[in-house]
Amino acid sequence: MRVGIFGFGKAGRSAATVFLQNPGTVLEWVVRRSAKLEHRSVPEFLGISSTEPGLIYSREEFTAAELFDRQPVDVIVDFSADDCLDYYGEEAAERDIAIVTAISHCPRSKIALLRRLARRTPVLWSPNITIGINFLMLASKVLKKIAPYTDIEILEEHFKGKTGASGTAKRIAKYLGISSARVKKIRAGGIIGTHEVLFGFPFQTIRLKHESISREAFGDGALFAAENLFGKKRGFYTMEDLLLPYFAL
Amino acid sequence: MRVGIFGFGKAGRSAATVFLQNPGTVLEWVVRRSAKLEHRSVPEFLGISSTEPGLIYSREEFTAAELFDRQPVDVIVDFSADDCLDYYGEEAAERDIAIVTAISHCPRSKIALLRRLARRTPVLWSPNITIGINFLMLASKVLKKIAPYTDIEILEEHFKGKTGASGTAKRIAKYLGISSARVKKIRAGGIIGTHEVLFGFPFQTIRLKHESISREAFGDGALFAAENLFGKKRGFYTMEDLLLPYFAL
Amino acid sequence: MRVGIFGFGKAGRSAATVFLQNPGTVLEWVVRRSAKLEHRSVPEFLGISSTEPGLIYSREEFTAAELFDRQPVDVIVDFSADDCLDYYGEEAAERDIAIVTAISHCPRSKIALLRRLARRTPVLWSPNITIGINFLMLASKVLKKIAPYTDIEILEEHFKGKTGASGTAKRIAKYLGISSARVKKIRAGGIIGTHEVLFGFPFQTIRLKHESISREAFGDGALFAAENLFGKKRGFYTMEDLLLPYFAL
Amino acid sequence: MRVGIFGFGKAGRSAATVFLQNPGTVLEWVVRRSAKLEHRSVPEFLGISSTEPGLIYSREEFTAAELFDRQPVDVIVDFSADDCLDYYGEEAAERDIAIVTAISHCPRSKIALLRRLARRTPVLWSPNITIGINFLMLASKVLKKIAPYTDIEILEEHFKGKTGASGTAKRIAKYLGISSARVKKIRAGGIIGTHEVLFGFPFQTIRLKHESISREAFGDGALFAAENLFGKKRGFYTMEDLLLPYFAL
Repeated sequence: MRVGIFGFGKAGRSAATVFLQNPGTVLEWVVRRSAKLEHRSVPEFLGISSTEPGLIYSREEFTAAELFDRQPVDVIVDFSADDCLDYYGEEAAERDIAIVTAISHCPRSKIALLRRLARRTPVLWSPNITIGINFLMLASKVLKKIAPYTDIEILEEHFKGKTGASGTAKRIAKYLGISSARVKKIRAGGIIGTHEVLFGFPFQTIRLKHESISREAFGDGALFAAENLFGKKRGFYTMEDLLLPYFAL
Repeated sequence: MRVGIFGFGKAGRSAATVFLQNPGTVLEWVVRRSAKLEHRSVPEFLGISSTEPGLIYSREEFTAAELFDRQPVDVIVDFSADDCLDYYGEEAAERDIAIVTAISHCPRSKIALLRRLARRTPVLWSPNITIGINFLMLASKVLKKIAPYTDIEILEEHFKGKTGASGTAKRIAKYLGISSARVKKIRAGGIIGTHEVLFGFPFQTIRLKHESISREAFGDGALFAAENLFGKKRGFYTMEDLLLPYFAL
Repeated sequence: MRVGIFGFGKAGRSAATVFLQNPGTVLEWVVRRSAKLEHRSVPEFLGISSTEPGLIYSREEFTAAELFDRQPVDVIVDFSADDCLDYYGEEAAERDIAIVTAISHCPRSKIALLRRLARRTPVLWSPNITIGINFLMLASKVLKKIAPYTDIEILEEHFKGKTGASGTAKRIAKYLGISSARVKKIRAGGIIGTHEVLFGFPFQTIRLKHESISREAFGDGALFAAENLFGKKRGFYTMEDLLLPYFAL
Repeated sequence: MRVGIFGFGKAGRSAATVFLQNPGTVLEWVVRRSAKLEHRSVPEFLGISSTEPGLIYSREEFTAAELFDRQPVDVIVDFSADDCLDYYGEEAAERDIAIVTAISHCPRSKIALLRRLARRTPVLWSPNITIGINFLMLASKVLKKIAPYTDIEILEEHFKGKTGASGTAKRIAKYLGISSARVKKIRAGGIIGTHEVLFGFPFQTIRLKHESISREAFGDGALFAAENLFGKKRGFYTMEDLLLPYFAL
């Protein structure tokens, strides 16, 4: 499976690290908006020993068509800004390249564009692409079905500057059909981020807890998404869609 | 659904409490080995306001046939000693009464007997009938399938007298296919019992944790088992079998 | 050290259990309001093998003066209702018997009475006599002095019926001088009670956490209070006063 | 209080960040072994807005005597390699400059040198300079004195590569006088580091838990050490010595 990455910020580098270390994938290139680091080797830049091509290009050097023809890929992983889709979307769909995109604040117009592209190639969009959070949501839904009479509370902890409940906590509450008043927030120091879903039974509790070790936790999710999207039929997918089959034990 | 309970120790009382408070079930009777408490009302004894019959009988007062004919039930919940099966097994199978049994140290001969009865009526046997622990095992298996490269550790905490790893922890390790060396034990004071399965990713952790609040946590599981076994085809079931359909989201 | 206990509810029984098992103390008697269980042996009732006298009396059998003369004690542990103080207070002070009282909702008039008795004998009054909670408060105060710039959050978990923040959580917040808005509440199922004080630093967190295993956790605190109050000068003491010397390492 | 830092690795940068943001201290300079980054501004390099001098020098540019005379400091914070002490030790002692050094694998000969310098100026040496861990040790010792009958267990979690129990966990066990067999290890994924000391009572538990958010947690401890060492009499101090006065509530 040949992979190309758009974006080389924290998330993009995290994804590149994971793909380079994974034997089943080949990192063909990383495309950045700026010409900075142009033609540098990604493995070398990240200090990873690898024989995969993995060169850094800028958007200005090639059109997407030129890039895809010159150095084809099977899957695109997009951790860039939302305008990047205009650069590659049409050309990727034409070539049946699967698209994994994790833009967190994706405007409606871009989601509409992703849905149109999804008529021609498999597309995954998720605002939070970590395996952990998405697993937490699905496992919590299972447990709520098993024991609908339990009390469910959500506890999230983040660094002190963060205002309001985390988007992820609100998303979990909505997904489980519980009031957002049941989201309890801890704000202290430099805590990166934890989310816990607690189920209270009369004589036992079950806690499903996710802790982020660093803000670079997206690589694992991107690899999972790419591997599970590749080979799927065209269509619009979420992380939930890709995780669901694993719940059929 | 009419329910009869065998055994009135901690687990039996816990089950009786849950069934009496559940609108969808009627507790017909509790049968004990001894004549102590004979003809006492279970709701009154437990201090629960209820109009359900719920009388306490001793095994000596009736044969199982007499009992089942006089006051029929749909499901038997057995928290007594293993010899009790000889008292009621044959007669229950004959009448298609579902059997939920949670005898923890069940000898092979009794398991063989349960399997024979299961050819005629639905039978569930599980050494640990709590919803929490069984959910933990299945959810952990799902996550291991999703992310087979993670490091899995099991942490269990119990009161100081307890020697060796807990049976539940060893069962989880075996079920997940990991070495029992990965079970870490905490022994201190009066801790009732916690089991945590920890999945370590490079940049995140997921923890699935079960805490027992009291040793009476079996009632919830017995209710779940009874409700999900009732109406099933004859056969031999485990808690896992009954929980699995809930994982198909 | 000879000990007498007033009250034989959960807390009184828990205290009796701890004193009977502690080699340095002798349980002389337990006094109840009602005549129920009169002249029963406490060790026998609690299933503890012991040669200590430990008989159960009712308040009506003797006056406090008769009781103290007939079977003298060095320390009184009072887990009864607040009116009990009128029964024994004056007579105890006259005989220099130390008084440990843990009445949780103590009216002002009784606290005033305790303060008057404290001019003649050592008296301890604390609304929460557990070692754990009081240690948590003091250790938290130390840490706040060491790192005043940290963010402090208090997390408490209790069973679902409990309304409002726990009295203990509010007491901790007040003691640390932080807003009660920093107390976060989890309410679910049958959780007995946990209190956690979290200190957030830029790159680390410290959590001081107390978990109640059962509502009978008062015995340890009563023993600690009795042992540390006995031999002290007359005066009015709190758990904090007795714990403080241990912080001078 | 004027501060100079030796070393500009992770720990040195973390310390510089904390000192620059603290109003009571002025960062005069950072000295590195290599000439890389020479004459760069530390605030600028770290992206911190500050008017403090904070220039980067190399050891080769000046002797310690020249440096101290040209740009005097009150406290030295040393996060460099152990040979650095030879560069500045003698000159610092001569000028009564307090020395905070946190070299983790300090050879005996250097500790002997530190003790000799301590006859002339205040010197602090600690293999782990975080406030959190040192507070944990002292608070645990207090609690063990209060409740010597409790069961103490130490739980530490680290990334999967780490072999053997952590040095910190072994140090805590030794300090509390408990067997190192009571240290339980979790090794999984990328966990940075947590240490928990658990006290088991019959009916309650107390957990003192430290979590590292990043490996740069040394800045807080260095600031605390510098502020509390400055003004002290000459002598050899540990973190414990500086923390102890805060325990006298």
